[in-house]
Amino acid sequence: MKSEIVVTFFPEGKRVRIEEGKSILEAAYKAGILIDAPCGGKGLCGKCKVKIRDEFLPLTPSESNLLTESEVSQGVRLACQFRPRQDVVVELLEPFREATMGKTELEKELAVVKGDVGINKYFLELPKPSLDDQRSDEERLLSFLPNADRLAPWVRRALPTHLREADFRVTATVFDKEVIAIEKGDSRDEIYGVAIDIGTTTLAAYIVHLPSGRKVASYSALNPQTVFGADVISRISYSIEKDSGLEELRRKVLEGLNGLLEELCGFTGICQERIYKATVVGNTCMTHLFLGVDARNLAFSPYVPAFSRMVKTRARTVGLNICPDAWVYVLPNIAGFVGADTVGVILATGLYRKNKVYIALDVGTNGEMAIGSKEGIIVCSTAAGPAFEGAHIRFGMHATPGAINRVYIIDNDVKISTINGEAPRGICGSGLLDAVAEMFKAGIIDSTGRMLNEEEAKFLPSCLRERLRTCEGERCFVLSPRGENALGEDIYISQRDVRELQLAKGAMRAGIEILLKKWGIGLDELAGVFLAGAFGNYIRKESAVAVGLLPPLPLNKIYMVGNAAGRGAMMALASPRYLRKAEEIARKCRYIELSALPEFTNHFMDAMSFPEYNALELEKNRKGGL
Amino acid sequence: MKSEIVVTFFPEGKRVRIEEGKSILEAAYKAGILIDAPCGGKGLCGKCKVKIRDEFLPLTPSESNLLTESEVSQGVRLACQFRPRQDVVVELLEPFREATMGKTELEKELAVVKGDVGINKYFLELPKPSLDDQRSDEERLLSFLPNADRLAPWVRRALPTHLREADFRVTATVFDKEVIAIEKGDSRDEIYGVAIDIGTTTLAAYIVHLPSGRKVASYSALNPQTVFGADVISRISYSIEKDSGLEELRRKVLEGLNGLLEELCGFTGICQERIYKATVVGNTCMTHLFLGVDARNLAFSPYVPAFSRMVKTRARTVGLNICPDAWVYVLPNIAGFVGADTVGVILATGLYRKNKVYIALDVGTNGEMAIGSKEGIIVCSTAAGPAFEGAHIRFGMHATPGAINRVYIIDNDVKISTINGEAPRGICGSGLLDAVAEMFKAGIIDSTGRMLNEEEAKFLPSCLRERLRTCEGERCFVLSPRGENALGEDIYISQRDVRELQLAKGAMRAGIEILLKKWGIGLDELAGVFLAGAFGNYIRKESAVAVGLLPPLPLNKIYMVGNAAGRGAMMALASPRYLRKAEEIARKCRYIELSALPEFTNHFMDAMSFPEYNALELEKNRKGGL
Repeated sequence: MKSEIVVTFFPEGKRVRIEEGKSILEAAYKAGILIDAPCGGKGLCGKCKVKIRDEFLPLTPSESNLLTESEVSQGVRLACQFRPRQDVVVELLEPFREATMGKTELEKELAVVKGDVGINKYFLELPKPSLDDQRSDEERLLSFLPNADRLAPWVRRALPTHLREADFRVTATVFDKEVIAIEKGDSRDEIYGVAIDIGTTTLAAYIVHLPSGRKVASYSALNPQTVFGADVISRISYSIEKDSGLEELRRKVLEGLNGLLEELCGFTGICQERIYKATVVGNTCMTHLFLGVDARNLAFSPYVPAFSRMVKTRARTVGLNICPDAWVYVLPNIAGFVGADTVGVILATGLYRKNKVYIALDVGTNGEMAIGSKEGIIVCSTAAGPAFEGAHIRFGMHATPGAINRVYIIDNDVKISTINGEAPRGICGSGLLDAVAEMFKAGIIDSTGRMLNEEEAKFLPSCLRERLRTCEGERCFVLSPRGENALGEDIYISQRDVRELQLAKGAMRAGIEILLKKWGIGLDELAGVFLAGAFGNYIRKESAVAVGLLPPLPLNKIYMVGNAAGRGAMMALASPRYLRKAEEIARKCRYIELSALPEFTNHFMDAMSFPEYNALELEKNRKGGL
Repeated sequence: MKSEIVVTFFPEGKRVRIEEGKSILEAAYKAGILIDAPCGGKGLCGKCKVKIRDEFLPLTPSESNLLTESEVSQGVRLACQFRPRQDVVVELLEPFREATMGKTELEKELAVVKGDVGINKYFLELPKPSLDDQRSDEERLLSFLPNADRLAPWVRRALPTHLREADFRVTATVFDKEVIAIEKGDSRDEIYGVAIDIGTTTLAAYIVHLPSGRKVASYSALNPQTVFGADVISRISYSIEKDSGLEELRRKVLEGLNGLLEELCGFTGICQERIYKATVVGNTCMTHLFLGVDARNLAFSPYVPAFSRMVKTRARTVGLNICPDAWVYVLPNIAGFVGADTVGVILATGLYRKNKVYIALDVGTNGEMAIGSKEGIIVCSTAAGPAFEGAHIRFGMHATPGAINRVYIIDNDVKISTINGEAPRGICGSGLLDAVAEMFKAGIIDSTGRMLNEEEAKFLPSCLRERLRTCEGERCFVLSPRGENALGEDIYISQRDVRELQLAKGAMRAGIEILLKKWGIGLDELAGVFLAGAFGNYIRKESAVAVGLLPPLPLNKIYMVGNAAGRGAMMALASPRYLRKAEEIARKCRYIELSALPEFTNHFMDAMSFPEYNALELEKNRKGGL
């Protein structure tokens, strides 16, 4: 029997067990960490670099070939080649590593605010009632809590039972002078909060140990509202068409969130009732539906939300299964299509306090973007997302196991990788972007996005020419031939898929151009771009630049910041200062309605075509990125 | 066909229509106003004096006989004799008139606090949203309300619909910087509040027009919780025995209250959603059950309530069908058996700010009492009530139509009156008290409460002797012989009934004695006694003194103050100053647990017997009362 080895990934802190003989790349797949391995783990491309701590094993021939001496001396190895024989810690390198910018800021900040969350727990041994001491349970409790002057409603309801079951030895949780929980015995160590990000497609929850600011666990799941439609408009339609529609949608998302909480608490062993605070971000429609607020006007011009300020409500009122009297803060939104999630991104990236000007893009089902510095912030949104999330794409799918997420055209051949290394089932957003970028660079599509016809294709290397076919009446390019995938048919990119991508990236890019223009700066003055969102986290920067989704910036000015919205929610959770900052950000942001700008159409038309491909330029930029 | 005449009773303002030829006494019955008519409306006793305004008709022989010239000159007539020929206003005289003491105080106070309720309504014509003005509905609204900075939760939910249905012409209600209601069009005049008194047996609600402090309407109904038992202990048992018991009890009382609100709003034409504030009083158990708070410990020594401070909660949270975001204030309680209703009584009688020392008694299913002045207040409670509410009495019943409510033994004969003048069905609390007092005065029972045996009864006048019988093995005294009532059997007071009354009045009186002792004053230093509660309102002062329920005070020192608890709730409703005062009262009251006092038993034993009857003394005291 083979022995098991524990692999810990740094800085994520994720830990998995693998059998001896398996590679770090396989361990990463198992841990759900995406390491780019375009050659499929064959030791050919040299992309899957990681740093191994503590263990040195002889280099494989591939490693000797692909790593520099300096890299080797720093402990850099190829994840596909290194097969540990003992427990190891693996350090992820850029670009696989979730950009730590916001994260270190958060940690730095939390070190400062530590203990400042305002939630305190006190262990009390109360004197028992008698005919000489007939004070109410409330008075008895409050007389021992100098910092509290009232009971929260659910505490009041069950106080007699809780006190007596605990034989009057209880831990009281006090927040803002109110007793929000009573627990049996001494539970002072357990003070948790949860940050929630309600995406149109994905729900994410992060549990934070509040006194230390430590993220204990996070988890995500599909938003169960998707049964009522993939996008916000179809959900709003449902809420309008059916009398109980709004309530059904509210229940659905709540069901999803409570499921997430149960899972999270199940595997961390944290008691759900010991989560005393929650922050919620999400796009404007999602926060409306979460609170059961009529969202219909978001579907019609002028796209007016019902509310925009921060909402503070009780967990029980809103239906979250945490401490019933916990306060839930729904972060403010900015406009009908720029929600609390964008406020979270601005908070997490620190856009609002930069000396230089940055752009933050959050690419989800919709694309929201902001330009700004400490001088101010301008925001806008575009209906960019569906293609990036696999919608309207022939073989499109979400970024789940089996999705093609990387495409390289190297040596006139096509290399693909899939999520978790499983047999291909379809193409996710980052795979689509990669595929189109590589097809453009290889000359398979021209700068208008048109695929070569049969005549023109004759000049392509045979290997590529064979993949360029006509299927169901349109030109298409096969990424994974039948027999090599789980579908049993060719998985390809169609001409129409390319058009969908052009529409999506064109809208995003037009938004970026307008933001730059409104701010009044050129590209050279832009200090950088933060790319946020699940999709933003996994695309290759160079592909984003190659297709023109992003302007031609040096790659080291593009920061992949992962789920910055969720991180913003965590910051607001762990620090009242950030909560106030979120309100300030929402108040100060200037919103631009792109659809009301005559120049938008021109920018959009321009941005749909592909930029002149300049291999040299791109190479230069790439070097800047290493 | 006889024409109809409108009779208006002053100061109640109640108005009824009667056929020509009917007497004022009959009109009063129809209006639900109790006018004492021991002779049954035969023009014999001269008790049913009223003042008639506007109309003079010749005196009947009875009136000539029974009224003084001075009375006639002031418009005093006998209600049973006066048969109006045109619409008249009838002024009720003491003791039929609800003591106006607290009432005038309230009105005086309300004139001062007028407009100080803190609830304001603003009529707004908002600009409509456009692509140039995409502010959220919330921002749009708040920008026109300088005194508001947030939306209440239920306003937020429906804001988009409300604004658009009203074409952006709305009235906003603002309380404490929060928008708590949005209504179509201009509804600025309509600002109402409701004061609620939750009795173990009876629910009462009072609607107040807040800007003027005017009581618009009031109504009462049976507490539907009575299906789970007549007293608090049986309700608590139900909440313990059944898992869902507490919730069922909560729902039941809510059902009753919402029914009352519907009735009240139905006949006044007030929209329930335009009631923006509520205050609630009730005994400690009732307020616990209303809020769904575990009340079990009230049933066991040391009788500790879960909470005692004031509770502020939303109408929707608590389930009251008024404006969903209205704030509901449950007044504080003092101890397990001295509830918010007693706080209301203290507030309404002004006990807490008297220069001299008064006692306030609230006689309901339980008896709560307080002694105090501006120097302080001491409170206690006794399990006094059941007998006074008809429980454990052979022919006992609630004070509903057909209940014998007055008993006189005049000229060696028994005269009774019933509620609404209907044929007798049973005996209510005030009837029981009257009967026993008169029986004692007539020598039918001795000072230990024993009824005369057959031998002893020989000395009684024949008319009384005939009524003194042995039924079902015990002595009894017939009030209404079969044939003269609706039951078809003799309605009597049994020996056991007398014992029940002795227990009840003994406990009350012992409480009074202990309060006097604790305060350290004699009876001569006591400035007066306020008698509150539905029962307290209808008893005859002289009977209360005759049986020893009350100490031998001049009758003009005994004030019948009606439902003072409800009036206290109204005061707290109409003035934030009184709300704060209620909190202060509850905090300052010193509670005495009678069951823990060794001397209580002695006082109780003493107080069970009847005081030496001194006709002359009583006559003197009575004169003091006119």
